[in-house]
Parts: sequence; C-alpha cells; structure tokens
Amino acid sequence: MTIALVIGASRGIGLEFVRQLLADQQVTKLYATYRQVTSPLLQIQDHRLQCLQVDVTIEDQIAAVAKIMQEAGSLHLVVNCVGILHTEQLQPEKSLRHIESDRLLQYFQTNSIGAVLWAKHLVPLFKHPEKSIFASISAKVGSIGDNQLGGWYGYRASKAALNMLMRNVSIEYRRTCPNSIVVLLHPGTTDTDLSQPFQANVPEGKLFGVDRTVSQLLTVINRLESPDSGTFFNWDGTKLPW
Amino acid sequence: MTIALVIGASRGIGLEFVRQLLADQQVTKLYATYRQVTSPLLQIQDHRLQCLQVDVTIEDQIAAVAKIMQEAGSLHLVVNCVGILHTEQLQPEKSLRHIESDRLLQYFQTNSIGAVLWAKHLVPLFKHPEKSIFASISAKVGSIGDNQLGGWYGYRASKAALNMLMRNVSIEYRRTCPNSIVVLLHPGTTDTDLSQPFQANVPEGKLFGVDRTVSQLLTVINRLESPDSGTFFNWDGTKLPW
Repeated sequence: MTIALVIGASRGIGLEFVRQLLADQQVTKLYATYRQVTSPLLQIQDHRLQCLQVDVTIEDQIAAVAKIMQEAGSLHLVVNCVGILHTEQLQPEKSLRHIESDRLLQYFQTNSIGAVLWAKHLVPLFKHPEKSIFASISAKVGSIGDNQLGGWYGYRASKAALNMLMRNVSIEYRRTCPNSIVVLLHPGTTDTDLSQPFQANVPEGKLFGVDRTVSQLLTVINRLESPDSGTFFNWDGTKLPW
Repeated sequence: MTIALVIGASRGIGLEFVRQLLADQQVTKLYATYRQVTSPLLQIQDHRLQCLQVDVTIEDQIAAVAKIMQEAGSLHLVVNCVGILHTEQLQPEKSLRHIESDRLLQYFQTNSIGAVLWAKHLVPLFKHPEKSIFASISAKVGSIGDNQLGGWYGYRASKAALNMLMRNVSIEYRRTCPNSIVVLLHPGTTDTDLSQPFQANVPEGKLFGVDRTVSQLLTVINRLESPDSGTFFNWDGTKLPW
C-alpha cells in the first residue's frame, strides 16, 4: 500500500508522475496538486486520484491541503515537481544586465520556498514506521560546483537554495521522522514546456521524453535507502556535486 | 595605487576592512557604503575615504552610487560584507515550524541579491588591465556539502544562493572583465553583532576578534590569482566545498 502526493502535477514531469503512479496498483491513494484549471490532470478518471488546487507561493493554501490530507494518516512518497524557468513575463537572464530583483525573488519563491513550506506542513504525515520518501525535482544547473557556463542567474540560484533547504529538511526529518528519506533529483533535460525554448542546444539523444524521465526517476526513487537522505541524485542514480 | 570599495561598512567586518585598508598607503581612494547613520564609520577622518549611504535592497540606490564611483575610473578591490542573520524582527529558524515565506525572502534579498546587483552595476569599473578582486563574505554554514547540523534555513539558503550567484558572476566577468577575480570568503566565526547571540556554542579559540578576521581575509585576498576566480575560500586560504 502506497499513499503518494505529486506537487505541481498540471503538466510536464509532474503530470507524468501521476500517470505512472496510477499505473502501479500498489498505489492506493494519490494526491496531486495543480495550479492551472485547464490542466489535462483534471481529465484523468481514477477513484484513487484526488486533485487539489494549490499556488505554492501562498502558504495558507499549502497548509489547507496538508490538512485535508491528514485523513490519509500517512504518506509514503512525495514528489515535488514545481519549478519555473520562464513565463510570459520572465525570461532566464543571459547576462548581469538582465538581473532584476523582483524576478530573482519570484524564482526563489516558486522554486525554493514552496518546497520547504510543504516540508513544514507535511511533517505529521511522515511520522510513521514505514519507509517514506520526499523527492524534489532540482536541476544540474543548480549545482554550484558543476557550473561552468554561467547565465540563468535566478533559476540556478533558486535551485542551489532548494538544494540547501531540502538538505536541511533531511537533517531535521532524520530527528523527527526517522524513516523518511529526503532527496533532490536531476531529471535530465526533458521534453516539456519548461525546456522547450532551449532544446536547440541539447545534444542528440540527451533530450528525454517525459515518460522515460519519470520511469528513470522512479527507478532511482525505488532504490533509495536511509543513508541516501540529504543527497542530490542524477537521473541515472549517480550522485551530483552541490 | 589601489581604489577599493567596502559594501556594508557600518559595523563588524566591513567597518574593520575600512580601518585596515586605510592603514595601507597603497590605497589611494576608499569608498565605503553604510546603512546606519549612527555608524562609527562616519567618525573616521581620512581624505581618501568617501562614505555613501546605500540600502542594498533598493537597486536604484546601488545604481546611483555606482554612477558616482565612475569618477574613479576603475576599481581594484570590492569587499561585500552585507549580511543579516538576525534583526529585532528576524530570528534564524531552529526548525521547520519557524519557516515563514516573507522572512526567507528577506534573507535572499539582503544576503544574495544585493551582491549580484552590485556586480551588475560595477561592471564598467572592472574593465581595466590591472588585477581586480570582487570578494563577498559568505559563510561555511552556506556550504551545502558541509551541512550536518541543519537549522538556520533562510541564512544557509541565502548564502548558498549567494555562492551560486557570484560563481555565475565569476564566469561572466571572465569574459567581460578578464583581469577580475571573483571569490566567496568564509571569515570564521567573528566577534561581531551578527554572531553575538550564538557565541556560547563556539569552541574556545575559534571566536576571532574582528581585527584578526580581517587581517586573515586580506592575506587570502592578496594571494589571489586569476585561476582562483569562482572559488569559495576559508579564512586560512583553503578551499571550501559548495
């Protein structure tokens, strides 16, 4: 029996996590959060699926959904897929001259802070004796040590901040929810709306379909053990530098 | 001849950088920014010193000061000492239950974004043929890999974000200002207002006086060479993990 939550399931990797988790009969209950009411998520018919609308920049909405989920009693898997790289108003900065304070704050609010607010409100659902996993989709471009190219200031910094925040969560959960495993995952460059404007630079064979990405990440997730908590994993299960 | 800028010189490490740089006759011009009008910085009498009031959360103020500094033509050293850990309204989070979105944003705005806004507006002053250094005071607790204790979510994440942003600046400056060296520095725990409430946990002999901290950091700064750009240094000149 598995009770799972996918955060940011409107589209892309999050939506595909919902599809693949529903294909697993071990999953008895699946919560999925979305922001866009036009999402194909809302067309999925499955009695195990409960869709909940949440804007992760509003803590009250996260708290309210976490409260609804108390009925489940426990959670075994959370996958946080929320992340912005570009919107109509927001383009990743190619250079310092594109830096704007408000846009950097927008990246931090959505890509970094949302995850730790979920970690705050989901604590009670991780206090149970079974193995449980809180995985957040991070990005290799959020690795400070791996950064050789520069650019994308806000996105990179917000993913580095996410990595620190969730590493911190892994340490706190080890004390308060000792059967939990908290990790960061790099999905590889995946054919989604997020990567769409930047796919021209991706080497051949390095752009994954979303189904491949999610099945690879589920393989990594299913192999996680307690000592892995607080680690940043690549899609192939190798460790990435911070 | 050295033209230098100390950002955040109201007190603590920044103020001591001003004192030690003024003791160096090679320094022909020193700009120092401050926020608090009650700062002892404003009592220092030296014709080489120009004090400028700046709140780093307001980009227009940074831009205005950078414009004033164009008169100098070039900069050889910038030391960014701005950082908040606690204020009357802000306490570092001991646990997830203390997490608040607005406070996390406050940490990012002051500790992370300020530095990159300076890097944006100071570009013209780094475009000269002499060696020049842009050093930002980071913190070992901002090292994700080194983090074993947890807590201090906002401070840690904002320093990790600072590290990423300035690593990014080092890459961009390498192209646009090829004689620049951009680094992050851990000062060691120093006897300042910032560390004051937390000094009880510091092992004996590990709490540095501010004069010792700054002379150690100046030793590190003076030894920097071009390949060091983009690196995170400890006060003793060793490298720290991201």
